[in-house]
Amino acid sequence: MTSTLQTAEVIAVGSELLGSTRLDTNSLFIADQLARVGIELKGKSVVGDDRARLREVFAGALERADLVVLTGGLGPTDDDLTREAVSDALGLELVEDPEITERIRRRFEKRGLTMPELNRRQAMVPRGGTWIPNPNGSAPGMVIPCDGKLAVLLPGPPRELQPMLGDLCAASGAIGRRAGASRIYKVSLFTTGLSESHVEELAQPLYSTWRDGADPIETTILATPGQVELHLSMRSSDEQHARRVLEEARGALTSAIGDAVFTTDNRLLPHVVGDMLRERRLTIAAAESCTGGLLMQRLTDVPGSSAYVKGGVVAYSNEIKIDLLGVDESLLRAHGAVSEPVAAAMTDGIRARTGADVSVAITGIAGPDGGTVDKPVGTVIVAVLIDGEPLQIRTHLFPGGREMVRLQSTQTALDRVRRMLMD
Amino acid sequence: MTSTLQTAEVIAVGSELLGSTRLDTNSLFIADQLARVGIELKGKSVVGDDRARLREVFAGALERADLVVLTGGLGPTDDDLTREAVSDALGLELVEDPEITERIRRRFEKRGLTMPELNRRQAMVPRGGTWIPNPNGSAPGMVIPCDGKLAVLLPGPPRELQPMLGDLCAASGAIGRRAGASRIYKVSLFTTGLSESHVEELAQPLYSTWRDGADPIETTILATPGQVELHLSMRSSDEQHARRVLEEARGALTSAIGDAVFTTDNRLLPHVVGDMLRERRLTIAAAESCTGGLLMQRLTDVPGSSAYVKGGVVAYSNEIKIDLLGVDESLLRAHGAVSEPVAAAMTDGIRARTGADVSVAITGIAGPDGGTVDKPVGTVIVAVLIDGEPLQIRTHLFPGGREMVRLQSTQTALDRVRRMLMD
Repeated sequence: MTSTLQTAEVIAVGSELLGSTRLDTNSLFIADQLARVGIELKGKSVVGDDRARLREVFAGALERADLVVLTGGLGPTDDDLTREAVSDALGLELVEDPEITERIRRRFEKRGLTMPELNRRQAMVPRGGTWIPNPNGSAPGMVIPCDGKLAVLLPGPPRELQPMLGDLCAASGAIGRRAGASRIYKVSLFTTGLSESHVEELAQPLYSTWRDGADPIETTILATPGQVELHLSMRSSDEQHARRVLEEARGALTSAIGDAVFTTDNRLLPHVVGDMLRERRLTIAAAESCTGGLLMQRLTDVPGSSAYVKGGVVAYSNEIKIDLLGVDESLLRAHGAVSEPVAAAMTDGIRARTGADVSVAITGIAGPDGGTVDKPVGTVIVAVLIDGEPLQIRTHLFPGGREMVRLQSTQTALDRVRRMLMD
Repeated sequence: MTSTLQTAEVIAVGSELLGSTRLDTNSLFIADQLARVGIELKGKSVVGDDRARLREVFAGALERADLVVLTGGLGPTDDDLTREAVSDALGLELVEDPEITERIRRRFEKRGLTMPELNRRQAMVPRGGTWIPNPNGSAPGMVIPCDGKLAVLLPGPPRELQPMLGDLCAASGAIGRRAGASRIYKVSLFTTGLSESHVEELAQPLYSTWRDGADPIETTILATPGQVELHLSMRSSDEQHARRVLEEARGALTSAIGDAVFTTDNRLLPHVVGDMLRERRLTIAAAESCTGGLLMQRLTDVPGSSAYVKGGVVAYSNEIKIDLLGVDESLLRAHGAVSEPVAAAMTDGIRARTGADVSVAITGIAGPDGGTVDKPVGTVIVAVLIDGEPLQIRTHLFPGGREMVRLQSTQTALDRVRRMLMD
């Protein structure tokens, strides 16, 4: 039987992946490789070096998915149990393949060593399976057909796994051969300034038509601080058609959500703002208080940002606001550092000192201390001054702890600049 | 039934975790918290926003483990399905809890918003379960007893999940109450300025004695840019004994590694430097070029940093170096912006303008462009001036891309300040 493989699960094997320090990162590479041939990753698991548990998890995965990729646990030692657990689950005997033994022996000989007897375990293949040479290590990979489905066993080290999986997914490989004509195509759009539920409410009417349409589009919504992402994906065997349908869907979504959409090509907000500045041949500078340099750091994170970032002042203390930004002491006394008049003076100060076309000021209370009844933690004033336009200034109250408040403050400032430049 | 919880599985829910870009990192924190109360993580899974599949994976996990922790999928939208899938698997009806609805409504009102009707989904609790307030978000957590076992549902964002799980694992919490007598105890130490293999070489002789001793200590080494961490852990039912053994081990390691150890209490470097400044009643300011505010941002990330951070200047362009820091134009022409004389002038400039006791300057080439044969990408000059001491200045060549270079530059600057303050 050689039916098409459509869905997959990944199982990473190794007790070291269950602690508090190491993650299975192979699954990212695997997800990408499989998506390219239209196979959708539906789940992943991590199991320790535990034969019974691995057998169960593998059996469950094989029931749900067409393809199960196991990584790790193919070494020569006692706690490398992937071969055994898979054989148990499939009821297949393990048989030593003399060609593998011979290859491993030669590998050791090349380095002037004798193969330890232990390594013969690596030559054991479940009956009916085929093995894949590993040019970068001693553990061969294995491909085991199971009633029209497929189990693939790969070594854990990325430099061994990656070329082997690449070969398997090629048109002639054991996975690529059985990939369908259909592929998964994706588009996405990122928004800022709206909550997840508000984005959802705007998108909802479109969702339902797509979900039930002739070409069903899957939608995923994902919120991170100051940003809500919408991902659309569609399976199709007609690339042109899929791209057109997804483009239309993205267009409809963008119209429904409006200006809050800041990108449809995965650029992050500092990048989008940077590109707008570059196109308009404008420069930017910032005076930051509570964000302590985070806005500048995010702007300069973008390669090539020196073309439009002039620089900035982190005015964490009042003295610096006075000495480096020329904020009037009487203003600070009358209104306090977290006030619209001071924010306005900060934009004036940074503009005068840098000559930037776009001047941003942020002052607020990031917490955990420093809040008052009138100005609780999360109170942040964002001011943006663009040459020849009226100053835009607004007082916000951001939820969350220090890090969240700081991140939302910079996100809001960047979005304010973006919207002003759009007009 | 209230038997002891010994084993656990974690299920992270969200289709975005099955792509090629995002990993479930919550499980690291969960593994750590559970280990502290002696519960061993036996497996973890990631499932997309797929009700049937999640139900199956959850049912399988609950069969194998005493405790199943699910993260994510508790949002208000259609594809947040954790509540439903768990209810399906356990055969429990979902019931709206009016107190949760009321809390969510108030949360929105506080920000001047009306609660979208969608959010009522977050108030649905499987019958028999109890809910846990979430001070940092709208989704409450849930604890559901299942025939002597336990299912715990937590929101996905780390800042919401972490305090909630911490409470659950406390002695009086739903998990902590049912933990066994033996616990896993841990100590750690963080180093900077040495490579992973260098730290390993220094630690190796101690490792082997611990591994084979009467009280085996497990050791883990973990390298992140600019930092190498050593984690020691030990399982014991005698807390005093375990703590003494681990303290001794940590002491021996600290002696073996020396000054490169900057903390044994998990404070990150900006925090350690901040505490040193506070104790010595000193202030700090920085003039940053290639790091673009990252040093200031890291310093001000620490709550309470306004006590010692004066502020800084991000001098991304030469004009700003001249206008805001008073760097001599002829110096820039003669040596270039990335040169020791300019770095020295930057420290003088920031000191003169801020009056800080500790003045730091960073100038370099973070890449990807801007490198030359003489000054390739990664060339960074770090200068530190402490009042009454000679200027310390050094040219570094950091490996890696833009982000790595920027991070290592700030790490090196912070470490330089730390070592100068120690003397």
